[in-house]
Amino acid sequence: MLTRDHQLRVRYAETDRMGYVYYGNYAAYFEVGRVELLRSMGFSYRRLEEQGWMLPVRDLRIRYMAPARYDDLLTVRTTVPRLPGARIEFDYLITNQQGRTLVEGATTLVFIDAQSMRPVRAPDDLVEAMGKHFITDP
Amino acid sequence: MLTRDHQLRVRYAETDRMGYVYYGNYAAYFEVGRVELLRSMGFSYRRLEEQGWMLPVRDLRIRYMAPARYDDLLTVRTTVPRLPGARIEFDYLITNQQGRTLVEGATTLVFIDAQSMRPVRAPDDLVEAMGKHFITDP
Amino acid sequence: MLTRDHQLRVRYAETDRMGYVYYGNYAAYFEVGRVELLRSMGFSYRRLEEQGWMLPVRDLRIRYMAPARYDDLLTVRTTVPRLPGARIEFDYLITNQQGRTLVEGATTLVFIDAQSMRPVRAPDDLVEAMGKHFITDP
Amino acid sequence: MLTRDHQLRVRYAETDRMGYVYYGNYAAYFEVGRVELLRSMGFSYRRLEEQGWMLPVRDLRIRYMAPARYDDLLTVRTTVPRLPGARIEFDYLITNQQGRTLVEGATTLVFIDAQSMRPVRAPDDLVEAMGKHFITDP
Repeated sequence: MLTRDHQLRVRYAETDRMGYVYYGNYAAYFEVGRVELLRSMGFSYRRLEEQGWMLPVRDLRIRYMAPARYDDLLTVRTTVPRLPGARIEFDYLITNQQGRTLVEGATTLVFIDAQSMRPVRAPDDLVEAMGKHFITDP
Repeated sequence: MLTRDHQLRVRYAETDRMGYVYYGNYAAYFEVGRVELLRSMGFSYRRLEEQGWMLPVRDLRIRYMAPARYDDLLTVRTTVPRLPGARIEFDYLITNQQGRTLVEGATTLVFIDAQSMRPVRAPDDLVEAMGKHFITDP
Repeated sequence: MLTRDHQLRVRYAETDRMGYVYYGNYAAYFEVGRVELLRSMGFSYRRLEEQGWMLPVRDLRIRYMAPARYDDLLTVRTTVPRLPGARIEFDYLITNQQGRTLVEGATTLVFIDAQSMRPVRAPDDLVEAMGKHFITDP
Repeated sequence: MLTRDHQLRVRYAETDRMGYVYYGNYAAYFEVGRVELLRSMGFSYRRLEEQGWMLPVRDLRIRYMAPARYDDLLTVRTTVPRLPGARIEFDYLITNQQGRTLVEGATTLVFIDAQSMRPVRAPDDLVEAMGKHFITDP
C-alpha cells in the first residue's frame, strides 16, 4: 500500500453560501492529492501527458461526513490500494486541522494513449516504482 | 418516480486542458438538475433555505462514460427514485446533443434544521407534492 | 454598436460564504455573454477554435456595484463597442431580476493563429457580419 | 509599501481547453495572495469576518501577458500600495518558475460592518500594523 499526505488551505472561492466547501470542489482536492503522490515518487502528471498518456477519471465516489470551512488547513491522505494495470485507483481521506475526518472518497482512472485514444496499460516505470510499496512476503 | 430534464451548455470555464469538462464540474450540473426539478414542482431551493432548511450532500457518485466537450448542449435528466424522508436521493443522467450518455450519477442529501443543525424530516408539502408521482395502485 | 442580452441563473456552486457570487465567477458570466453574442450572429466560438483561431483574453476589468445572490436570474448585456481588428473588445452589464445593475465590466481579446501562435487580424466574415451594426451615415 | 510573496501550484481544475489557466481563475490566486499577506502580519481574514467585518471586492483589473500552464509553480507577489482607510487596495504580480511575468492585477476592497451592512473604516489594529511599512522619514 502506498500513502501520501498533502496539505492545502481552503480558499474563499471554494466555499458556498452555506459557509462550507462546495461539495463538487473536493474533486479538485483529490486531484491535488493524487498528483502530489505521483510527484513524491518522481512522476509528474504533466510529463505523463506530454509523453502521450491521458488519465481520465472513470469513477468518483465521495462521502461527506463533516464540512470543511473557509481557511481550514486540510490534509488530503491519498492511497493507492493496489498496483495499477489498465486502471489506477486512488482512495482519499480528508481531515481538518483538528484531525477530524471530513470526507472519504475514491477515484478510478484509466490509462489512455493520446494518439490512438485507446486504453493501454500503465507505464512500466510507474508500475515498477509503485511495486516497491506492494512487496508481499512469502 | 419523478423525472425532469434540464438543458445547459458547457462553458469554457468548465473545460480542462484535456478539452473535456473537468470531472469535478459535473457536481454543479447535478445541482442545477435537482434545483430545476424542485422548481418545476413549485419549490425553490432558495426559499427552502430562507425558511430554515439546509440540504447538505452526504454522498456523491459519478460514473464517467464519455466526455462532455466545450459548447456541448447537455441534457441533465434528474430522477427522484423514492419518496424523501430524512434524506432525499437524486439520480442523474447526462446526455449530449447527439443523445449519447456521458455521465451517470447519484447524490443523497439530508434535511437539516438550520437553527438546531440537527437532521429533520423533509418538509410536509414537499413530500406531499412528490407523493403524487409515487402513487402505487392496490 | 452591437448589443445582445443573455439570461443565466446563479448556481450554488458560484456563491461564496458571504452568500454572494464569488467575485472571480463573473468572468465566466462574461464568457457566456460574448459567446452567446457571437452565436446570435451565426458564429460559434467552438468552430472558430476548430478553424485554428484562438482568442485569449488580454485585459479584464470588473466593477462590482451590488452582489448577485444564489438563484438570481441575471441578464448579461454584452456590447461590442467598436469593430474588431487585431483585437476585439466586449463590454458587459449584469442586472438582476429587479433590473438592478450589479456589475459592469470589459474584456479585450486578441486573435491568435493557433498554428503560428502569432497575433492575426479578426476573421473577415466576422468583421463583415459585425460591420452591419456599425454603419455610420455621412 | 508592504509586499509579500506566496507560491501556489496550478491545478488541472484551473486550466481550460486552451491548456492555460482560465482567465477568471486568477481572481482566486489574487485572493490567496492577499489572505496570505494578511496572515503574515498576524491577521486572519477568517477572524476578521468572525469579528463582524466584511471585505467585498469593488474593483478588479487583470492584465494577461503570458499564460500560466498546468502544474506551473506560480509566485503571487501581493503589494499594499497605500495605507487602508475606508478601502484597501492590493496589487498583484504573478510570475512562473522561470521568473516570467504572466499576469498583473489590482483589486480594491471596502470594509463593511456585517451588522449594519454599511461602509466603515479599516480596523485600527490592521491600519497600525500596516503603518509600520509606510513610515516616511522627515
